[in-house]
Amino acid sequence: MSADIPSGFGGENALIRRIRERFSDPRIPLGIGDDAAIVEIPPGYSIVYCSDVVVENTHFIRELHPPDSVGYKAVAVNVSDVGAMGGVPMFFTLSLAMPAGVGVKWVDAFLDGVERACADFEVNLVGGDSSSAERIFVDVSMIGRVEKGMEVRRSGAKPGDGIYVTGSLGGSALGLARLRAAGDLSDDAVQRHLYPSPRHKLGAVIAAQAHAMIDISDGLSTDLMHILEESNVSARVYRQLIPGWKKAADDHILHGGEEYELLITADSLPVGIDGVPVTRIGEIIAAGLDRQIFLIDQSSESVLQPRGFEHFL
Amino acid sequence: MSADIPSGFGGENALIRRIRERFSDPRIPLGIGDDAAIVEIPPGYSIVYCSDVVVENTHFIRELHPPDSVGYKAVAVNVSDVGAMGGVPMFFTLSLAMPAGVGVKWVDAFLDGVERACADFEVNLVGGDSSSAERIFVDVSMIGRVEKGMEVRRSGAKPGDGIYVTGSLGGSALGLARLRAAGDLSDDAVQRHLYPSPRHKLGAVIAAQAHAMIDISDGLSTDLMHILEESNVSARVYRQLIPGWKKAADDHILHGGEEYELLITADSLPVGIDGVPVTRIGEIIAAGLDRQIFLIDQSSESVLQPRGFEHFL
Repeated sequence: MSADIPSGFGGENALIRRIRERFSDPRIPLGIGDDAAIVEIPPGYSIVYCSDVVVENTHFIRELHPPDSVGYKAVAVNVSDVGAMGGVPMFFTLSLAMPAGVGVKWVDAFLDGVERACADFEVNLVGGDSSSAERIFVDVSMIGRVEKGMEVRRSGAKPGDGIYVTGSLGGSALGLARLRAAGDLSDDAVQRHLYPSPRHKLGAVIAAQAHAMIDISDGLSTDLMHILEESNVSARVYRQLIPGWKKAADDHILHGGEEYELLITADSLPVGIDGVPVTRIGEIIAAGLDRQIFLIDQSSESVLQPRGFEHFL
Repeated sequence: MSADIPSGFGGENALIRRIRERFSDPRIPLGIGDDAAIVEIPPGYSIVYCSDVVVENTHFIRELHPPDSVGYKAVAVNVSDVGAMGGVPMFFTLSLAMPAGVGVKWVDAFLDGVERACADFEVNLVGGDSSSAERIFVDVSMIGRVEKGMEVRRSGAKPGDGIYVTGSLGGSALGLARLRAAGDLSDDAVQRHLYPSPRHKLGAVIAAQAHAMIDISDGLSTDLMHILEESNVSARVYRQLIPGWKKAADDHILHGGEEYELLITADSLPVGIDGVPVTRIGEIIAAGLDRQIFLIDQSSESVLQPRGFEHFL
């Protein structure tokens, strides 16, 4: 596919050359700069494969989100998806479309974020595409590996399973609220929103014990419902057991997206793995007529409706 | 990554369910509907991996291009890229972002095009993402297979190689001009622009003989220059030998993009392979100070400047 790139880059070729120089890695058989990349995964493994899109004014606001956060997050969310299958992320493609008004400075900072993500998550950019557009649009696809037959699906939850969550919830939604209100980039919740830390390494460690696993990208209520629907079960969740980010509201904790913590069902998991807290918040029960989440709050019980994370658009 | 989807689909879940029902294939270990897909390539093969973005008002105009063409082309261009490596396309992800004004009808027709491409090119949609956006963005990433060490790169051209092109050139650019002028969808050049036929099967057949190969997506002049730059050689091309689409102008033939024919350098290729014409249009020569394309037209010789295909934006 051809691509016209805003002036300032000296055309698409110059942009690709820029990216190629920054991201070339001698260990990749063939990376950026041909019709396609050539990569390998070791024998005995299946390919884990996903993509996630980041759209200006839907997932980020140019005036609000630092460009390196946009690049970092676009990679991190895919790392999280691969990890939630119990896989190890390896290679990714990056498609970047942007308007003429986006300057070299924005793109360089965006690439700084991509590069930092490569280092943090041990993944390699191996190809992609660029184009002009009226708004910034970033799509990352990612390949990882998982031992054959060892992937953890959403569909494996069974009545009697414990429901576990890594880390704490609500920080990202709280951070977004604070970013919009005050724009203080140094706030720890804002940092969590801008530069998420997916639990991909934990995902691979937990895989052997997990019956079902998903990453919390849409919010606890929505992502737990994904497991319930795929597994045809219901869930009982105890409000007091859910680990909340400091000062996060109920809404942030129960429905806030972009957490990139893992939600796991298993017979039993230890309370901490590799230094990350793992908390049992409820249990899987048999489904009645519908798959439902029953939220137990002190002595009251209610049905928790999944409510997707709301973006800007 | 979360996604808000225009009303009319009943939310992202309903859209994903819709897509999942249409594209599920029992031969895929795990397709649409989990955090990531699980796919396999046979032992002895490397992974061919690429992505290509299609942006509203850059690559297509909603009022001009039928939605099924947008879907078909988004898949076809990736099939072409995998084929140009000598690979066999297999699986792809689809990321789709769109504004609220895009209705179910547009999306269903778009998916018709994707589905037809799956059948025509024997590839499977296995995952992706959806989002709201102010313009339509489509990004497809694709995985294929190539026997280990058999991929054909852009960098293998050697002085003395013949330069070959499959099919004929200029039809897609002519078709675009006709589409804009008259909007007659039945015109054969318009059809070629809307529903390209990548030469991926030929790519895999030619791979063993090809020294360098690329698909013509940016135009003959630009894509030949990609080979010259990567191989550090120059080229002599004979204007009279270039097979032109009927009534295509010089500009269409020399610079028109979105052809998805193959451009190959090799010692020698037959004049037709599997029913597709293969034409020798020139030869690779040693590079002087610069890599250049010398265009021989009757008795005159000039330097052909690569000129990228111009999109709408």
